[in-house]
Amino acid sequence: MNRKLRMGMVGGGPGAFIGGVHRAAARLDGKIDLVCGAFSTKPENNKAMAAELFLPEEKCYNSYMEMFEKESQLPEGERMDFVAVTTPNSTHFPIAMAALEHGFHVVCEKPMTFTLDEALKLRDKVRETGLIFALMHNYSAYPMIRQMKKMIADGKIGTLRKIVATYDLGWLASPNAGKQATWRVDPKFSGAAACVGDIGTHAEQLIEFTTGLKITELAADLATFVDGRTLDDDATIMLRFNNGAKGVIECSEVACGEENQFKLRVYGSEGSFEWSQQEPENLIMRTNDSAMKTLRRGWAELDPSVQALVRLPAGHPEGFFEAFANIYNDFAMAVAAQKDGKDYAGMFPTEEAGVRGMNFIETVVSSARQNGAWQPLKDL
Amino acid sequence: MNRKLRMGMVGGGPGAFIGGVHRAAARLDGKIDLVCGAFSTKPENNKAMAAELFLPEEKCYNSYMEMFEKESQLPEGERMDFVAVTTPNSTHFPIAMAALEHGFHVVCEKPMTFTLDEALKLRDKVRETGLIFALMHNYSAYPMIRQMKKMIADGKIGTLRKIVATYDLGWLASPNAGKQATWRVDPKFSGAAACVGDIGTHAEQLIEFTTGLKITELAADLATFVDGRTLDDDATIMLRFNNGAKGVIECSEVACGEENQFKLRVYGSEGSFEWSQQEPENLIMRTNDSAMKTLRRGWAELDPSVQALVRLPAGHPEGFFEAFANIYNDFAMAVAAQKDGKDYAGMFPTEEAGVRGMNFIETVVSSARQNGAWQPLKDL
Amino acid sequence: MNRKLRMGMVGGGPGAFIGGVHRAAARLDGKIDLVCGAFSTKPENNKAMAAELFLPEEKCYNSYMEMFEKESQLPEGERMDFVAVTTPNSTHFPIAMAALEHGFHVVCEKPMTFTLDEALKLRDKVRETGLIFALMHNYSAYPMIRQMKKMIADGKIGTLRKIVATYDLGWLASPNAGKQATWRVDPKFSGAAACVGDIGTHAEQLIEFTTGLKITELAADLATFVDGRTLDDDATIMLRFNNGAKGVIECSEVACGEENQFKLRVYGSEGSFEWSQQEPENLIMRTNDSAMKTLRRGWAELDPSVQALVRLPAGHPEGFFEAFANIYNDFAMAVAAQKDGKDYAGMFPTEEAGVRGMNFIETVVSSARQNGAWQPLKDL
Amino acid sequence: MNRKLRMGMVGGGPGAFIGGVHRAAARLDGKIDLVCGAFSTKPENNKAMAAELFLPEEKCYNSYMEMFEKESQLPEGERMDFVAVTTPNSTHFPIAMAALEHGFHVVCEKPMTFTLDEALKLRDKVRETGLIFALMHNYSAYPMIRQMKKMIADGKIGTLRKIVATYDLGWLASPNAGKQATWRVDPKFSGAAACVGDIGTHAEQLIEFTTGLKITELAADLATFVDGRTLDDDATIMLRFNNGAKGVIECSEVACGEENQFKLRVYGSEGSFEWSQQEPENLIMRTNDSAMKTLRRGWAELDPSVQALVRLPAGHPEGFFEAFANIYNDFAMAVAAQKDGKDYAGMFPTEEAGVRGMNFIETVVSSARQNGAWQPLKDL
Repeated sequence: MNRKLRMGMVGGGPGAFIGGVHRAAARLDGKIDLVCGAFSTKPENNKAMAAELFLPEEKCYNSYMEMFEKESQLPEGERMDFVAVTTPNSTHFPIAMAALEHGFHVVCEKPMTFTLDEALKLRDKVRETGLIFALMHNYSAYPMIRQMKKMIADGKIGTLRKIVATYDLGWLASPNAGKQATWRVDPKFSGAAACVGDIGTHAEQLIEFTTGLKITELAADLATFVDGRTLDDDATIMLRFNNGAKGVIECSEVACGEENQFKLRVYGSEGSFEWSQQEPENLIMRTNDSAMKTLRRGWAELDPSVQALVRLPAGHPEGFFEAFANIYNDFAMAVAAQKDGKDYAGMFPTEEAGVRGMNFIETVVSSARQNGAWQPLKDL
Repeated sequence: MNRKLRMGMVGGGPGAFIGGVHRAAARLDGKIDLVCGAFSTKPENNKAMAAELFLPEEKCYNSYMEMFEKESQLPEGERMDFVAVTTPNSTHFPIAMAALEHGFHVVCEKPMTFTLDEALKLRDKVRETGLIFALMHNYSAYPMIRQMKKMIADGKIGTLRKIVATYDLGWLASPNAGKQATWRVDPKFSGAAACVGDIGTHAEQLIEFTTGLKITELAADLATFVDGRTLDDDATIMLRFNNGAKGVIECSEVACGEENQFKLRVYGSEGSFEWSQQEPENLIMRTNDSAMKTLRRGWAELDPSVQALVRLPAGHPEGFFEAFANIYNDFAMAVAAQKDGKDYAGMFPTEEAGVRGMNFIETVVSSARQNGAWQPLKDL
Repeated sequence: MNRKLRMGMVGGGPGAFIGGVHRAAARLDGKIDLVCGAFSTKPENNKAMAAELFLPEEKCYNSYMEMFEKESQLPEGERMDFVAVTTPNSTHFPIAMAALEHGFHVVCEKPMTFTLDEALKLRDKVRETGLIFALMHNYSAYPMIRQMKKMIADGKIGTLRKIVATYDLGWLASPNAGKQATWRVDPKFSGAAACVGDIGTHAEQLIEFTTGLKITELAADLATFVDGRTLDDDATIMLRFNNGAKGVIECSEVACGEENQFKLRVYGSEGSFEWSQQEPENLIMRTNDSAMKTLRRGWAELDPSVQALVRLPAGHPEGFFEAFANIYNDFAMAVAAQKDGKDYAGMFPTEEAGVRGMNFIETVVSSARQNGAWQPLKDL
Repeated sequence: MNRKLRMGMVGGGPGAFIGGVHRAAARLDGKIDLVCGAFSTKPENNKAMAAELFLPEEKCYNSYMEMFEKESQLPEGERMDFVAVTTPNSTHFPIAMAALEHGFHVVCEKPMTFTLDEALKLRDKVRETGLIFALMHNYSAYPMIRQMKKMIADGKIGTLRKIVATYDLGWLASPNAGKQATWRVDPKFSGAAACVGDIGTHAEQLIEFTTGLKITELAADLATFVDGRTLDDDATIMLRFNNGAKGVIECSEVACGEENQFKLRVYGSEGSFEWSQQEPENLIMRTNDSAMKTLRRGWAELDPSVQALVRLPAGHPEGFFEAFANIYNDFAMAVAAQKDGKDYAGMFPTEEAGVRGMNFIETVVSSARQNGAWQPLKDL
């Protein structure tokens, strides 16, 4: 590729949060240009976005379908190469399906779809088209998470036994938590679960990504603490894994005062790892017979695959944008490789992670409805 | 009381761990003298303890029954006032029963007994004799735990919603973990559970003590990761409380590299607390609309009841011994008050906490045997 | 401004570090486009940069003078608006002077020049041309530093008494520390001081920026621990301030194992602040009679001027790039305001900070040569 | 020794702070009995102490001289073996001299005396009598400080280059800071320096103890920030060492909100250590080419000499009392060895450290009076 990749966006209009994050992350490394968007269905919003983003007004479409149709008629190199889907959960499926049908690669916010059934259909479509699909589980692209994954795969902590993930936020502790909150607790936009879909799936994905294990069954207890809600705002989920390991996900969006307190601990027969999203540059490694180590980006023994994700000298903090950008970079390299007819094995989450996440959500809800009876995840 | 309280000990001979901790804690404030012991059933061990502790050899008995009988014949002020029971779980009951029957107050290691049935009988005996019984859940006597308890009771974080306790150690990660470990995983000495009895009960007691809530039902998943064991070395226990709150206890003794990583988080409708045993002087308080606070012993608004537990200026670290000594002090004041015919309301855990702990253990084991079905705690 | 600002760069060719940081930071918010560069004096390097950055080869000049001349002949909106100077210290002055003389605004790496004399001349040129000059002291643009500055100015910690800054790195602990290190310890490229120029000036600038105080005199002890060096690789500098406060800067580049351990503590008569660059999102506030507070971006009482610097929800870590980008944004708004004929009061460091920094370096060296005698900073 | 050591105390009456710490620390390990005291010169205070400490009233003397005289006439085994001097600085010398003259070993609070001249006389007396003298620099007995000392001596971080100690408290930030504060800022009781004598000497002693280096010269800037004081309440002291290393001590008692924030960093050519008194169980070790390690008491490679100082399993926090008690234990073993005619090499600070500390104080004051001119420490 001797040009930047051309990106379009669906969603991310005025007042949205995650769309702006996608745009900044895509910009960071100078390999991607935002060239068009269907930021909103309201013309005045798209006009405002055109001005804010220095885009031609005619490139800010009032419907994603219009964007897909018009862009797909442009010649290669002038049309959008891929689309980022940053709308509420309920519309991921139709948008992503339409994008694929028009020949566009897709970066999609999580959870992938509204239902597991949609997820399976979308996966089929990705397979059928051969296009590239990335699911934005950005936490899996923090350098020290990748280092942990590598060291676990290399057997550095032995056979895995226990995995504990906790993800706590306080933002939904009160009934009125603002625009971003409203759709997340509304079953029409969010799906079968709120807290579990919003953050529980991050925990599920990070656990499976990092450990290489599969959750085989789970037992869940969901709670709704704030009056007037119909979906969960808090969850505890016990886990059993395919190698005999056990685990638990504790997540809550009514955890007053917490920001994005996402922590992961993985215990093996020879050692353990601890990582916290709010201090993402520290990977703590413990064993019974050596001193506790804090592995950081500056570590001389950092794996080369992780070193490739590093933009700054150690001690100059990298954070959320960089992890997000790592997904974009990896995706961009996969798209470029396909255009160039080359093989490329990315580590970004794909439609498989999306199916897995929806499988997890529906199994959690099913277990909770049966008062926490253990339920197997479907083999899909 | 115009004299020091006279203490005897059962257990705590050469190579034991917790007996020495009891002795040091009892000594710290100069209100208690160790005057006799049945440290071991082997005469040579008791001789060694006599030398080490500068006790007369005749005060180092070869059986607790002999000690109780001989001491009980001495006049008040010359005989032992109370006994500390620091033996493995399986012998707590007969020793404590005999002590009470001979008129001695008791400080007892946790869990209180081997079975719930014994616990109920012991509670009856305490009630019948009117003697004072303290159960050594020392964590509940850390100053900042007491501060948390007070502030929760005062409604500072609103209605409680979610409680998360984790207690992780690595010491049993391998089959051969030394003398202290051996009896703890042996059902003949430890009881129905190992990890749950050893540390799970600490979590259960600290949660109920600190929050004032009662666990009404639980769902447990126990694991035994090390070959050759018959008892649990790892557990996850989901909790429901009498006010509708939910919670989880995650505890493990195969968590490689962890020392005594005991953490408690309590979330209410208005704020939350976080505390960690390895940094016991920091009580973190969060709300959604003010800055995170780290409450410490030097805080000007520390509750007077907590201030009374403080021995050193803030910034000079206090730790485990001081918390342990707080239980001894409180117990000693209760004993002295009884001798002086006065009322005294201590905060040390009693036979009630002991019954509660055994109730918890047996319910956990019952739930685990039914593949994690929710089980109510008995109303006792 | 209804278009992106057009940026050129001098320096930042293959193997350089800080040039890439400037480019990424300038890109982050989508307000600035890199349109040309004199990345290197070697044609093959510029060719490589053209490919890497997707720039036309003719926009990658082999000399900064050629770039300034050619770009200055293009019409407004097509030519470069400003230049980022990211070369070694010794060339900042001629490049920045030439840029100003050709009518370009300047973003310049620190320290501003090679000598104080050059700094004064450059300041005169900035004043004379009325162009905008930003000095890249990026640490001063971390949100919590800005919050500290605001609260100090508002008197929240009373009259300032003591300021302690420490900046420790280990990268120069051995003689051979790589390409980035070589020029920094070479007096031909670095100037009168190495460690003091590289990191001591960051401390000096951050102190004066944050507190609003001026250093009036200083006493310095410089050290050169690694054989073969002629410049300092370690320094301790005692400070006295214009309000009677005292302070110290301790900085070292031979502090084995440290990454970019830059910490600032400010003590006033009523309270104090502590901040650490490696955990830049935590601003610790202490007073004698209230609990320690950790102020973070999510704080409800964050100053609106600081809120404007925030790109992500609290708990999603922001870091070095974002602080760097804050300088670029602020500079870009100043440039745009000038083009639009509007007033704009930015907070980015300017030529005044540059003169101050060179004044500091030369006074430190002078004091050190007189065995640490107190030396006043010149009134310039 | 087949009995406990018998301790007397001078000072430590009602309202005193450090006396109670000495008593608790001496009690902790059950090797020492407090048998008498001259706690106060007021009879009613001594009566109160007799009741509080369960001592016979006749053993609570109204003057130290009376105590020394009466106790010295008792037979060995019935009389006091040693005395702890816990009075304000101004009286250490006459009390300690009298104790030695009456044949008693001495534990003395720091700084050893009021003047350097007194310190030299006291050292002569110790040498002359052959009695044992311990100076209570308790920080030097934290286990991880001992581990650091051992590893430095073993060359684990190479040749030492830079030492940074900071000790900050807020308690004297206001004019009226209570009884404990009053004498510490009064030159009649405190001596030539306040902050430097109270905490600066702790830093000086810990640096020399831990590194094995000697300070050869220093340059000091003292400050008095609170009106009405004649002594320093804040200091910065640059240091040069006998091996060419450099350093700085920054200490303040007007550092609002700080508790006992005593930190030490030692940088060598191969690595570095960092330790903080408020988290005394963590010894951080860094090198340029391996991961940061947090060495703790549970470390498998802990030196056996340090292991001997450990009372609790790792993860059960030990603190200030235990460090203090380590000095008492070590002193007690030295006394017992002397009684038994055996050799014993303790690590507790002695009269040599006392002379060193007074030498430091007077050199600091001398340098400050000459506007921070470098002053050599005397060779004594």
